[in-house]
Amino acid sequence: MTDDLHHRDPEVVFARAVHAHHDGARGLHDNHEKAQEFFQSSMVSALLQGIYDGEMTFGELAKHGDFGLGTFDALDGEMVLIDGRFHQLKSDGRAYDVPPDWTTPFASVMFFEAEMERGLSGPMTRPDVESLLAVLAPKKNGFYAIRLDGLYSWMKVRSVPRQSKPYPPLVEVVKHQPVFEFENVRGSLIGFRLPDYTVGINVPGYHLHFIDDARTCGGHMTEFTLADGRLQLDHTINLHLEIPEANRDFDAAELASGNVGGEIKTAES
Amino acid sequence: MTDDLHHRDPEVVFARAVHAHHDGARGLHDNHEKAQEFFQSSMVSALLQGIYDGEMTFGELAKHGDFGLGTFDALDGEMVLIDGRFHQLKSDGRAYDVPPDWTTPFASVMFFEAEMERGLSGPMTRPDVESLLAVLAPKKNGFYAIRLDGLYSWMKVRSVPRQSKPYPPLVEVVKHQPVFEFENVRGSLIGFRLPDYTVGINVPGYHLHFIDDARTCGGHMTEFTLADGRLQLDHTINLHLEIPEANRDFDAAELASGNVGGEIKTAES
Repeated sequence: MTDDLHHRDPEVVFARAVHAHHDGARGLHDNHEKAQEFFQSSMVSALLQGIYDGEMTFGELAKHGDFGLGTFDALDGEMVLIDGRFHQLKSDGRAYDVPPDWTTPFASVMFFEAEMERGLSGPMTRPDVESLLAVLAPKKNGFYAIRLDGLYSWMKVRSVPRQSKPYPPLVEVVKHQPVFEFENVRGSLIGFRLPDYTVGINVPGYHLHFIDDARTCGGHMTEFTLADGRLQLDHTINLHLEIPEANRDFDAAELASGNVGGEIKTAES
Repeated sequence: MTDDLHHRDPEVVFARAVHAHHDGARGLHDNHEKAQEFFQSSMVSALLQGIYDGEMTFGELAKHGDFGLGTFDALDGEMVLIDGRFHQLKSDGRAYDVPPDWTTPFASVMFFEAEMERGLSGPMTRPDVESLLAVLAPKKNGFYAIRLDGLYSWMKVRSVPRQSKPYPPLVEVVKHQPVFEFENVRGSLIGFRLPDYTVGINVPGYHLHFIDDARTCGGHMTEFTLADGRLQLDHTINLHLEIPEANRDFDAAELASGNVGGEIKTAES
């Protein structure tokens, strides 16, 4: 599957966040921006245990960020939040709009304000970019948001397929994931690098989703070759975790048990 | 060491939070109350590694709560925040005022608004109260704030002694902690019960500090017998972690390494 988009308007690509959902909850909102917090709804360790139905709506989530990633109820695809718009990247590889009253079982978002920008000239592979980030984002115990807009000569993604109850655990689901490869596609990598100590609460290390410029396709990034692009980084010292308020499965889950770290590597690498 | 305080004015003991530091940062503040978040500055795993000098002032910390516990730079005693006032319980067992420009290497605070109150008739030991809390605070994956004001026929606390550089790790420090016992003392237990998955970020399970009604003595509670008292509980689904912004020791620390869980049990039980 290839995609030869030629959407080259840099005004669009590098425009400031649109803040589409921005005016809903004034006071709270302004402060969350001020605090520049990395916000997450529920935990990866809950996903590992097959807790795939969420409580927080995307409308609520938008009050906590205009940038980020996550997933959907019944694990129905990969979520990308970019420039204040949510996109559902389903297991057919295509992007769909997200109704604000849908809920998410896991999402990580932030109000992205680039603290650092740098043009990148490829070819650069995922390991190349991670080596550069090790220098540009030196604080291993801090929270980084990463945005890499550009032309990718090769992009490999996957997406989780919608599950039916009783939900299988995540390590089972990821054994059967559709994989998509795009060539010469313009688009954005969106995601985070999180500290090792967030294991279970979130995914330590790099976690990036991809969406093309036309917002038609993408998924959970596994490998890529960048031709050229623009890297933007944001950083925060604040983590805000909100767990579900009324979810019996979540309440009953043993979220610190077993080989959480190993299972996250299997599920999210 | 015994203490026979007879300060019995229930208006004082059960008065609503004074919000002494409440008027400083209006907007931010109101929202943190609304969100009812459990806020913590830095992490227990940093303490384990001997990172005993903080960055956040008590003045700043007061914007995040009127209730909580923590410690001081150089590990100079146990901190109790009650009714909006900070108290330093040093290794002489006595309570001292805390200047707002001092900084803390670790603290957990909240704006306490009791969701549940219950009168308790003793004698009740620590295990008795924890058994009751298992029923009254059923969500093992949620964040509970606990306040138990009353007459204690026996209260056993300890406090950490001030350390000198190079700082030894916490498990070494706790081998040499002064212990204090009080009899027939009126006072308040202040603290939290946190989920197992917070291990390293904070202290899983119960973590309670004691201060007497006259605010003259107290420490890190290890055992007690309650004669009679009033239990108040608050609950939140929000955790807010703020890590140090400019602390080279913190930045370099391997905060997820080794036997963090075991070391926390040794240091904080």
